[in-house]
Amino acid sequence: MIRWDERSRPGPVAGVTAADVQGLQLSAARYVLEPDAVVPEHAHENEEFGQVLNGTLELTTAGTVEQLAAGDAFLIAGGIPHAARAGTGGCELLECYAPPRAPR
Amino acid sequence: MIRWDERSRPGPVAGVTAADVQGLQLSAARYVLEPDAVVPEHAHENEEFGQVLNGTLELTTAGTVEQLAAGDAFLIAGGIPHAARAGTGGCELLECYAPPRAPR
Repeated sequence: MIRWDERSRPGPVAGVTAADVQGLQLSAARYVLEPDAVVPEHAHENEEFGQVLNGTLELTTAGTVEQLAAGDAFLIAGGIPHAARAGTGGCELLECYAPPRAPR
Repeated sequence: MIRWDERSRPGPVAGVTAADVQGLQLSAARYVLEPDAVVPEHAHENEEFGQVLNGTLELTTAGTVEQLAAGDAFLIAGGIPHAARAGTGGCELLECYAPPRAPR
């Protein structure tokens, strides 16, 4: 069983806590974003699935902006630039990557 | 954006509603299990990540039984037999598969 809180560590940018698990075909990560935390635009070859677990997230994918709330999910093809900003209440986010994405 | 309720359909076994999205490298699915719904033991080559979103789940992986609650996650290697039973309050479950697993 994976308990995310046992794996939590500072994330790749300020205001983000990360936890991950690495498989052979995919990896998964849980991110906790503080209110208004920003993940700058980036891109990677790994396909990315995500779901908002709690709070809200503004997701920008290839220039298109969407407002996501708890229960909303998304799928980003490999190589597509994307960025995110947590809402004023912060955001808990679950993501899966294939092929596996190394922790950062 | 993916809204699971718009994709929901009867699942592979009684008492389970499924929704899925298919990528090129992974697929994701949201399952809603009625109280005490049983997913019989099965196995597949796809690696499987899962997280309980709401409720509880008894997960049996290669004969080992674990009790999962909301927020708990798991990773099952390809080819490993596994089965599940929802708790008395039912279970909402999010899963990712790599390579993508066709809807069933």
